[in-house]
Amino acid sequence: MSSVFDHPWLGGLFADAEMAALWSPEAQLEGMRAFEVAWSRALGRAGLADAEQAGAAAAAIAAMEFDLAALRAATARDGVVVPEMVRQMKLAAGPAQAAVHQGATSQDVIDSALAIAIAASLDLMAGRLRELETALRALSDRQGARPLMGRTRMQAATMITVADRIRPWVTPLADHIERLWQLHPRVARVQIGGASGDRKALGDAAGIVVREVAAALDLSAPPASWHARRDGVAEFAGLLSLITGTLGKMGQDIALMAQQGIEEIGLSGGGASSAMPHKQNPVQAELLVTLARFNAGSLAQMHQALVHEQERSGAAWVLEWMVLPQMAQTTGRALSLACSLVASVNRLGRD
Amino acid sequence: MSSVFDHPWLGGLFADAEMAALWSPEAQLEGMRAFEVAWSRALGRAGLADAEQAGAAAAAIAAMEFDLAALRAATARDGVVVPEMVRQMKLAAGPAQAAVHQGATSQDVIDSALAIAIAASLDLMAGRLRELETALRALSDRQGARPLMGRTRMQAATMITVADRIRPWVTPLADHIERLWQLHPRVARVQIGGASGDRKALGDAAGIVVREVAAALDLSAPPASWHARRDGVAEFAGLLSLITGTLGKMGQDIALMAQQGIEEIGLSGGGASSAMPHKQNPVQAELLVTLARFNAGSLAQMHQALVHEQERSGAAWVLEWMVLPQMAQTTGRALSLACSLVASVNRLGRD
Amino acid sequence: MSSVFDHPWLGGLFADAEMAALWSPEAQLEGMRAFEVAWSRALGRAGLADAEQAGAAAAAIAAMEFDLAALRAATARDGVVVPEMVRQMKLAAGPAQAAVHQGATSQDVIDSALAIAIAASLDLMAGRLRELETALRALSDRQGARPLMGRTRMQAATMITVADRIRPWVTPLADHIERLWQLHPRVARVQIGGASGDRKALGDAAGIVVREVAAALDLSAPPASWHARRDGVAEFAGLLSLITGTLGKMGQDIALMAQQGIEEIGLSGGGASSAMPHKQNPVQAELLVTLARFNAGSLAQMHQALVHEQERSGAAWVLEWMVLPQMAQTTGRALSLACSLVASVNRLGRD
Amino acid sequence: MSSVFDHPWLGGLFADAEMAALWSPEAQLEGMRAFEVAWSRALGRAGLADAEQAGAAAAAIAAMEFDLAALRAATARDGVVVPEMVRQMKLAAGPAQAAVHQGATSQDVIDSALAIAIAASLDLMAGRLRELETALRALSDRQGARPLMGRTRMQAATMITVADRIRPWVTPLADHIERLWQLHPRVARVQIGGASGDRKALGDAAGIVVREVAAALDLSAPPASWHARRDGVAEFAGLLSLITGTLGKMGQDIALMAQQGIEEIGLSGGGASSAMPHKQNPVQAELLVTLARFNAGSLAQMHQALVHEQERSGAAWVLEWMVLPQMAQTTGRALSLACSLVASVNRLGRD
Repeated sequence: MSSVFDHPWLGGLFADAEMAALWSPEAQLEGMRAFEVAWSRALGRAGLADAEQAGAAAAAIAAMEFDLAALRAATARDGVVVPEMVRQMKLAAGPAQAAVHQGATSQDVIDSALAIAIAASLDLMAGRLRELETALRALSDRQGARPLMGRTRMQAATMITVADRIRPWVTPLADHIERLWQLHPRVARVQIGGASGDRKALGDAAGIVVREVAAALDLSAPPASWHARRDGVAEFAGLLSLITGTLGKMGQDIALMAQQGIEEIGLSGGGASSAMPHKQNPVQAELLVTLARFNAGSLAQMHQALVHEQERSGAAWVLEWMVLPQMAQTTGRALSLACSLVASVNRLGRD
Repeated sequence: MSSVFDHPWLGGLFADAEMAALWSPEAQLEGMRAFEVAWSRALGRAGLADAEQAGAAAAAIAAMEFDLAALRAATARDGVVVPEMVRQMKLAAGPAQAAVHQGATSQDVIDSALAIAIAASLDLMAGRLRELETALRALSDRQGARPLMGRTRMQAATMITVADRIRPWVTPLADHIERLWQLHPRVARVQIGGASGDRKALGDAAGIVVREVAAALDLSAPPASWHARRDGVAEFAGLLSLITGTLGKMGQDIALMAQQGIEEIGLSGGGASSAMPHKQNPVQAELLVTLARFNAGSLAQMHQALVHEQERSGAAWVLEWMVLPQMAQTTGRALSLACSLVASVNRLGRD
Repeated sequence: MSSVFDHPWLGGLFADAEMAALWSPEAQLEGMRAFEVAWSRALGRAGLADAEQAGAAAAAIAAMEFDLAALRAATARDGVVVPEMVRQMKLAAGPAQAAVHQGATSQDVIDSALAIAIAASLDLMAGRLRELETALRALSDRQGARPLMGRTRMQAATMITVADRIRPWVTPLADHIERLWQLHPRVARVQIGGASGDRKALGDAAGIVVREVAAALDLSAPPASWHARRDGVAEFAGLLSLITGTLGKMGQDIALMAQQGIEEIGLSGGGASSAMPHKQNPVQAELLVTLARFNAGSLAQMHQALVHEQERSGAAWVLEWMVLPQMAQTTGRALSLACSLVASVNRLGRD
Repeated sequence: MSSVFDHPWLGGLFADAEMAALWSPEAQLEGMRAFEVAWSRALGRAGLADAEQAGAAAAAIAAMEFDLAALRAATARDGVVVPEMVRQMKLAAGPAQAAVHQGATSQDVIDSALAIAIAASLDLMAGRLRELETALRALSDRQGARPLMGRTRMQAATMITVADRIRPWVTPLADHIERLWQLHPRVARVQIGGASGDRKALGDAAGIVVREVAAALDLSAPPASWHARRDGVAEFAGLLSLITGTLGKMGQDIALMAQQGIEEIGLSGGGASSAMPHKQNPVQAELLVTLARFNAGSLAQMHQALVHEQERSGAAWVLEWMVLPQMAQTTGRALSLACSLVASVNRLGRD
């Protein structure tokens, strides 16, 4: 519980409930379950399992409860949760167990669940980017004509307008949305490869299985497994950090505008101080800077994980598990925070 | 709950109960409480508060329960938990509330609790470093004379011994312990500064208060507040990453030794595969590499936070909160994992 | 001269002449000169300067030699080279000096030259990505059917084919080309803003000036200046690191395949050892890993620079100068190295 | 020539001649030559080579000129410069060639030269840290009593003094000097290991050779080779970034103090603008922030290189070559810049 996102009191600052829900263990488990349900059904349709057994297996997996304590103990030993999940699913499927997970491997299950989380995150982010863009355009419409001292290298330069200051906050947002939809087909892909990623265990039925599972999970069906090439995942991480970078620039600007002696902004709300009751701290603005710097650093960790050796790198893959869910939550929080910060702006420029 | 350290099943892989306990919200709250108890007592001893009130305030703080929901709500607004903590403590202290937190500020409370967590972590790490060193020396004593192919640039070089391979795993450990005790006095320091860090609110009594509080918390009493200079905290982070780097090198070596065709090591245990029952994956060895690469990247985030502007940077300080607890847990886990991995070695070198 | 790219002997390993030429000081100076020439002409066409003077100024700037020693001395003082460049250009233009740089600012000159370098780099990279893709597909055509042990978590898994191993090396390349052309319009943009970025000094003629200069430099003409939003530049850096990450994975795989005991590859060439004449080191493969890890780390520096405060951040902008030219050269070298490495492959898989 | 340190005009901003000299190719070559001279002499003293031949070889190596073009061509092939250096040295030594490099390996030569550069850098840094500390203490003596608004979270807090603002700039410097001397013995160590690092080729004479070479190079003589454990080198990099972080905090503070509306500082000099002749940009202060953020990011690259597999990692070792010389120059420049910036301060606080 030392993560700021799940923390009893810091969660008030960092948690974004919607984004957290997409990356929670519960969502991961449901994503993996959805894969296995779709997999059993696809085995039946492809003739790789008895049709009745396939239906029974899918129904059993959909209805079962997983023994989390056993999952934890087995993960400690196996490094992945899937072997024990499969054991529990086969137990639940009973006589239909031949239609469980047959021809799949751990990485198929975990990476397909990851693709589901990424696709859902992209939807959430697209909506928030549009919302923020609308709010900033409205703010610029209301206050954009007011004069403001332009500042370059932290020195007064020439007079500009509030609209000029807002422009580099708002114009990247449409580009981020464009980036988002451009990368969408590169990451919202089902992962199916089997033991070493070659789909050999599926034989001629591979095409059917991939299409069926992809359709069930609302993902696209790539012609080959992507488990050992992580460029899509790293590109997604890059988008996260580009977004928080834009918001961090806005946060830094606002914190600078809120300084006494500068007073280029009026904010409602603002944090209290334990020692100085008169203060109104621009907490949200500063936090946007924090989140930008966090994601910028985390992005390097994700790119280190591109060196994913051979058919599966335990070391590089697991590094993604440590980093990506937090980057997603950081971005979700930065977006909600930015919307809230913009809504709290009473005044821009000086009277 | 998307942090790997607190995760229902990934926790089996990543959690280190002892280190987690030192950085848990519970420990943070107890650290902050301990500071406030010591503070009230010190105010009394220094004549800055009525002695009886000081005792009553300290007793009330020591005994009270904090309203966590209110702490969370207030942190969302204030950016720090302390103003609401102080409100609750004053309520608990009732007529003795003048002896609560008087002359202190948020950063005193939070950074002193941080110093407590760091000092305890150093103790834990020192013990584990010694334990690991002993285990590796014993392993070298047992198997060190056996021949092994030396490998440079991933190519067979000249024959060495098992002891030669183990040497760069074990010799850094004593240096890490030396580093640990050298930096100890630079981080195990109480933080006391008051509103802007100048201790002015304490007047001539500052020396007494600092000494009393430091003694109560088993920290040293520095001549000035350190809240706006973060070199101690960043240096501690550097030690964490040096340690995980050493262990990551060992993990990488062991994963390479365990390859079929190389077979320079025999390991008991090892992870199962969902698709390939015959496999024994060197999960612990790979995870050491993951943890090393995670800390290496996180260290950059901590060093970015050295640019801590003016008398308190909301942006830079909060970045540390996101990063350091996870680096500590990563290191704790890497140390316990390394001990466990060394214990699982049956054979080194080829027969 | 301590940069590996310009180093008397390490340059043999790291230098890529074509990419280096695009980012050399000479190219930077020519890019800035091209901007100023186009600027003077555009001032004339837009009626912001006397037409004859504009032509004379453009001709003088095109023909002049800059005093590099004076540029260096002034940069030490001003933090940017442009004020002294302008002084020298005005001197060269003599009576036409009113048509020099009028209404532009340092960042317009430097960032437009940057956009030229980026656009040229994208062209170079696109060509090399296609070349490498062709070479890898040919290699897969020749040797792809041969058997190979699939390896997951560094352990023998199931038999695959050489084509399966090559697939995650080659399939990302087409996606990188797609990314490249998608981001192209977001970075190949002229930068024109004037003092504080609002184009105010150009008045109603701003549109004409921007279009004219953009056309002359073969860049697009964005509706507003982009100098304070760095998402395009950071996205370009992200593509660089995605590419080197893909190549680093290939390099790591090849280094692992070249191990004695594994011998899954035959390479011609290979580095000599000063102590072990029998060795053939897979120097190129290892270097691809190095370059990937370098860019991964550098990417974080570029994303830190997204927090570009107000109308110009001296701190963040200059950070890009330290990082981006090296990332480009790292990527250029990785691409040429990968082509050369693939050409050196005699055999894949075991006989 | 795209490195900012060696750049025709940016060098005016970034170059530090003294530090550059310690890390230049010339210095590297002289360091390697010094190792080989000492090595030949030590072989003679240890009885591993004929005494007369040893002296002749040492004299020949000391006097010879290296063929740089051949070194470059060979490095491109071998990945290291040493095999070709050895070829040239043997040619120069003629009949004494048996006393050249015998029993040493590339990494001994290059890492010992690295240790020489690090030791010299530590000396240079220690002097500058003391100089800066003296200057800051003098500044605090002169102006420290003046009032200044304390600022926390970028908001006016309580009045402090100029001495309070300076304190976190100056107090870390003594700690950095302490760190420097504590790590000195962990990095100023000769590297001697031979082919696979076990010193086997030296037999019983290893102790003598190591002591002799170490003494000649003014380095300590460690009981074992350190080539595959990089903690000393990474720790040195950590110190570099701690120092630039402290200076970056000072730079950020000064840039904030120099804002119009704040005006807490008066600076002489300051950079000119091409568009705004009235401006005085705090170029030096901003550059300190840049250098801090650069080193913070680079430190992660150095820590990634801790995962240095087996007896020599081509990939990890070469990553250090790309990163460490630039970190050293960044630090040297930050120190000279900080001294210069402090000397330019006319006034602190408001009149």
